[in-house]
Amino acid sequence: MIIREIRVTPVAFRDPPLLNAAGVHEPWALRTIVEVVAEDGLTGLGETYGDLGHLEKVRECAQALVGMDVHHTNRVYSRISSLVGDVVSDLHGLTGMSTKEKSIDRVYSPFEVAFLDIRGKAANVPVCDLLGGRVRDAVPYSAYLFYKWAAHPNGEPDRFGTALDPTGLVDQAALLIKEYGFRSIKLKGGVFPPEQEMAAIHALHEAFPGVPLRLDPNTAWTPETSIQVAEELGDVLQYLEDPCPEIPGMAETAQSLKSRNITTKLATNMCVVTPEHLPPAIASDAIQVLLLDHHYWGGLARSAQVAALCGTFGLDLSMHSNSHLGISLAAMTHLAAATPNLTYACDTHTPWQDGQDVVSPGTLRFVDGAVPVPSGAGLGVELDRDALAVMHEQYLRCGITSRDDTGYIRRFEPDFTVKRATW
Amino acid sequence: MIIREIRVTPVAFRDPPLLNAAGVHEPWALRTIVEVVAEDGLTGLGETYGDLGHLEKVRECAQALVGMDVHHTNRVYSRISSLVGDVVSDLHGLTGMSTKEKSIDRVYSPFEVAFLDIRGKAANVPVCDLLGGRVRDAVPYSAYLFYKWAAHPNGEPDRFGTALDPTGLVDQAALLIKEYGFRSIKLKGGVFPPEQEMAAIHALHEAFPGVPLRLDPNTAWTPETSIQVAEELGDVLQYLEDPCPEIPGMAETAQSLKSRNITTKLATNMCVVTPEHLPPAIASDAIQVLLLDHHYWGGLARSAQVAALCGTFGLDLSMHSNSHLGISLAAMTHLAAATPNLTYACDTHTPWQDGQDVVSPGTLRFVDGAVPVPSGAGLGVELDRDALAVMHEQYLRCGITSRDDTGYIRRFEPDFTVKRATW
Ligand SMILES: [Mg+2]
Ligand SMILES: [Mg+2]
Repeated sequence: MIIREIRVTPVAFRDPPLLNAAGVHEPWALRTIVEVVAEDGLTGLGETYGDLGHLEKVRECAQALVGMDVHHTNRVYSRISSLVGDVVSDLHGLTGMSTKEKSIDRVYSPFEVAFLDIRGKAANVPVCDLLGGRVRDAVPYSAYLFYKWAAHPNGEPDRFGTALDPTGLVDQAALLIKEYGFRSIKLKGGVFPPEQEMAAIHALHEAFPGVPLRLDPNTAWTPETSIQVAEELGDVLQYLEDPCPEIPGMAETAQSLKSRNITTKLATNMCVVTPEHLPPAIASDAIQVLLLDHHYWGGLARSAQVAALCGTFGLDLSMHSNSHLGISLAAMTHLAAATPNLTYACDTHTPWQDGQDVVSPGTLRFVDGAVPVPSGAGLGVELDRDALAVMHEQYLRCGITSRDDTGYIRRFEPDFTVKRATW
Repeated sequence: MIIREIRVTPVAFRDPPLLNAAGVHEPWALRTIVEVVAEDGLTGLGETYGDLGHLEKVRECAQALVGMDVHHTNRVYSRISSLVGDVVSDLHGLTGMSTKEKSIDRVYSPFEVAFLDIRGKAANVPVCDLLGGRVRDAVPYSAYLFYKWAAHPNGEPDRFGTALDPTGLVDQAALLIKEYGFRSIKLKGGVFPPEQEMAAIHALHEAFPGVPLRLDPNTAWTPETSIQVAEELGDVLQYLEDPCPEIPGMAETAQSLKSRNITTKLATNMCVVTPEHLPPAIASDAIQVLLLDHHYWGGLARSAQVAALCGTFGLDLSMHSNSHLGISLAAMTHLAAATPNLTYACDTHTPWQDGQDVVSPGTLRFVDGAVPVPSGAGLGVELDRDALAVMHEQYLRCGITSRDDTGYIRRFEPDFTVKRATW
């Protein structure tokens, strides 16, 4: 099935002031929407990052793929490899180092998702059926809590309110659970000193007894602090995510925990973010949970291969998320549905987009914190062209071309420094 | 696409007296042909072992899969897992230990291949296009040399002649290369003491300069002997296959070679034969080449996942073969065509079946030692129902129900013992 045309559209949507170790989310989050049109008029959708350097590579590759076959992903991957000459960096650094391999996988991903969408439509099966078929009818996601300001400076307050202390986070969790039915909670940490974030976890544990909790300080801590936090929180945590930087630091932490009989698992979407990181991480037993993300693990089929590898090596699996729209939520849901060894509820930023989307409403919904696998052919979602046009206008007007949480927070806190092994 | 019916037919075909560490091939080789019929009349083909215990499991599972969907391989795998209650052993032991996981993968494989055949036909694409698309237009195979008798005792001589010394093997290689155009050579060893087999390798090296050579004694040697042979043959060998038993023995050999700066790579289809073997083999650096075989690695998609894992961990790849017919050759060819990191020419027993087949002639052929990827939809091969009937009759008449090279050779050499770390 020959590719006739590929349309690449950057979009922007409102984003609340969510805090993290690198700064704070800007008022607009960016994504790029990829539409692939095949010879018989079938179209497929993909969604990826909106940062300018990446967007330009995606545009360049889109031109180069016209005339190729949607089944020939090996050749497409080679073509993209040859076009991604160098590392395409991402500024915010919250998904680890950019390597050349990771840059290729990141550019390749939205095309591959769109090809699977087309193939699913052609075969009249959902995308999960091209990945081995669903092993669950709905994919559980977690409530993704953030420390946040009441509003962007000079902006209107959003409906989620302030969350700068345990009470604010408990209120936030209550709101998200009420609206979405989430059954597990993740807190984005790395914002306040570890004692304050531990107090938040304890408060959440008291307010939501029995609900699994995770904490992700995005490498803000040293291995020593990581060990202390794990020891203090113990079984209260389902897993501890990227407490400290790099594979050796995580390995040191993991080994120390093991020697003290502390069973806290270490998860990552920062030190193991591309296949070349897997051998050293596995050899040093640095992680126990991989947080897969098809946006930088090379699309759905390659992510499924990494998931199989995790099964072989006894690594647990969950899924990482950046700010995203419905195409990505659908893709994640199909992949997770077809992954037998998915261990934990996946992350999603969906609540923070608060109804904004490029896909028509109706097919994606949350029931008890889980997204029922769309049953339509392909991804099962349709592009809302009006919404796309509006969001593209927003992109053109918003003045942001690359995510820069650090630059943004420094406008208001000039002395802000990125937390990395800081505490 | 719902499965309406699955037909399971054991077949037998004439096999020459090929010698190995476990004995000698019997006059008839067994296979099982699996035909899956889907709701719209599309049919898919699979091929697997013919040993009785395995055949019975395949038959039992065939019944249990009717009504399932050809896309739902995760569910099919679970169903088969629950039916393969225990290890289904294989008598000859030339593909390593049988484990429960390997037994499941082995029973699952022919169904999965048949499902892909159906899906390829439905989408009007070759099976390789369901695996990422071809990265090569033809798949290279190696000339697979065997020490052999002129004829089965009490049988007519076959056209391949005797091969019990270097001259016989060089003649055999010349015949196979003339007829098939092979550009690399594998010698099945473990039959004579290592000095004789080394002499054979040297003779082949002289007769076919520049042609890559491999030697596979099927674990007949100790690690000490393995090291000596590797040292003596040096660069004459492309790789040394299963010289000694088990992962620790191979690791000991590999480590010793490394410490002596001998670069001979160790390959296996015996000590790493199921996913659970990969972590210990990789941790101990026991092997450098994995010889993949979709018949016991759980079909084509799972084999592709293992291939990806090998790429991630820097293991080279080739493919193993047992006596097989054209359905398996087509399946191997599609998988190999879609495997970017296939390093070496694959093994095949095709010349030894000498034209006998269950598939109609025409689509599978050798050009310069390589099989052009069949371009038709699915596997691209068609069942020859007359040939199937004849071969099934042969199965019923031949009196063999499980491969037993050892039992057979002992009829003529009562004191024969299986060579395992013997030399
Ligand atoms: Mg994270
Ligand atoms: Mg072998």
